[in-house]
Amino acid sequence: MLLPTKVTIYEVGPRDGLQNETRLIPTHVKLDLINRLSESGLRFIEASAFVSPKWVPQMADHNEIMTTLMESQASKNGIHYPALVPNQTGFDAALQTNVTDIAVFAAASESFSRKNINMGIEDSLRSFRQIIEQAHQANIRVRGYVSCIAGCPYEGKVPAHRTAEIAARLLEAGCYEISLGDTIGVGTPNQISEILDHVLATDIPVEALALHCHDTYGMAIANIYEGLRHGVSVFDSSVGGLGGCPYAPGAAGNVATEKLLYLLDGLGIETGVQRDKILEIATFIRQEISQSPSKT
Amino acid sequence: MLLPTKVTIYEVGPRDGLQNETRLIPTHVKLDLINRLSESGLRFIEASAFVSPKWVPQMADHNEIMTTLMESQASKNGIHYPALVPNQTGFDAALQTNVTDIAVFAAASESFSRKNINMGIEDSLRSFRQIIEQAHQANIRVRGYVSCIAGCPYEGKVPAHRTAEIAARLLEAGCYEISLGDTIGVGTPNQISEILDHVLATDIPVEALALHCHDTYGMAIANIYEGLRHGVSVFDSSVGGLGGCPYAPGAAGNVATEKLLYLLDGLGIETGVQRDKILEIATFIRQEISQSPSKT
Repeated sequence: MLLPTKVTIYEVGPRDGLQNETRLIPTHVKLDLINRLSESGLRFIEASAFVSPKWVPQMADHNEIMTTLMESQASKNGIHYPALVPNQTGFDAALQTNVTDIAVFAAASESFSRKNINMGIEDSLRSFRQIIEQAHQANIRVRGYVSCIAGCPYEGKVPAHRTAEIAARLLEAGCYEISLGDTIGVGTPNQISEILDHVLATDIPVEALALHCHDTYGMAIANIYEGLRHGVSVFDSSVGGLGGCPYAPGAAGNVATEKLLYLLDGLGIETGVQRDKILEIATFIRQEISQSPSKT
Repeated sequence: MLLPTKVTIYEVGPRDGLQNETRLIPTHVKLDLINRLSESGLRFIEASAFVSPKWVPQMADHNEIMTTLMESQASKNGIHYPALVPNQTGFDAALQTNVTDIAVFAAASESFSRKNINMGIEDSLRSFRQIIEQAHQANIRVRGYVSCIAGCPYEGKVPAHRTAEIAARLLEAGCYEISLGDTIGVGTPNQISEILDHVLATDIPVEALALHCHDTYGMAIANIYEGLRHGVSVFDSSVGGLGGCPYAPGAAGNVATEKLLYLLDGLGIETGVQRDKILEIATFIRQEISQSPSKT
């Protein structure tokens, strides 16, 4: 089949990337990073998470980050800075910062859901449904993640129909887009193909799908290529592949934005994002991380 | 189309990998590496190159390496240890060590051919034709490389029909297999697809093709996947991704054998190679390289 002619890159470096780094990044560095990314042509930059600072110290500055961004000219110019929201408490806090975009995250694996957000899948979907309703009343767009689509650290392989079911329910609950996440980067293209076939067999249009690949075993680009072949045109990535080194066992960085851009540029697919700027920002943030204090 | 059910991995770490490392690896370490690889299930391990020690100091021990291997039990048991041969002088030296397999390398780019082997493409093909004839008289199998298929450091993009032409002539000259090399790792899957379409439009059967990908920009696995989709069932790779770091600009390591195996295992394709052993060997050789003396 024909590949999409345009692709949207949804940058997750400041959130999913930094969240998994072992050093604590100062707030001013995060804002500097986000501002630089905002000048690269990216239109979607996931900026923080309204999670408990007790569990995720890296995201403890969500209020300052999001308030600053919501008042920025870039935001007024239409750059989206979504923030992750795990529950009602997080949503209430997000609302205070005037966010325009949030993201909720369900899992395709029951065990991962319980470990990650302390709720089973059914409870999480019920909670998200309420949050999405309130978000829509406040004119906030909601993106939905389905994590662990290709495998779960606790349950192993996850059936494709399970992912399809959760994705369909998140869309039905009001998410404008569903990001299918190979959270631990274990998938190979055949699995991604099977999952997309199942998901597209529901009522979800391909335009409402995104693919979120980690590069743990170096499969992300091949998996994204399979996504493109299925018509997916939104991909999550992280500048510099933040969140882990592909050479360390157990590491699970997001696919690097510069690598994704190399693929898309090579395929002749339009993104509007400048790879040279992303490469500069990757160098900048690696340097800053190396100079930041350790978390513990 | 259906993917192949079996794939042959042609390991190039001891030759293409080490050749590009900046440290000089002692001969006993190379032999240790090759012996370990011989116990992983691999059947083809490119072991050395009969090139001038003046130009490639890393391969100066080709006589000792090849003589030792040709007398080994592994060789008698059917493991192939091909050696690269650039010219008549190299072939004469190789013959003295009783090699059973050699490889010749032509380029799809005229400038690269001149820089790499000091001959234009036509001259190199004439020379290889003579070498192949002598090799066949000595019962030696000859593999042919075509390098720079997706791009050349001197000429930029290389036309696909040029690769197809060189590949066809090498096969016609008597090579049993043609390895198409993205020597600088610049290709994306669409280019690999175009090249394979051109090559397969000649008289070359897909069974006689191999793909040799470098991972400079992280595209190798996606390119290999595209190769599989075209029916290619032989892939070159290098344990540990030897030959350069994918994160350093300009670096050009071969695709890592362990990464290739992750893909093939995930796709359910049989290789006979044990990934856990390859991972152990990758750790071993990285450690040895770090302890080896600098070349200069």
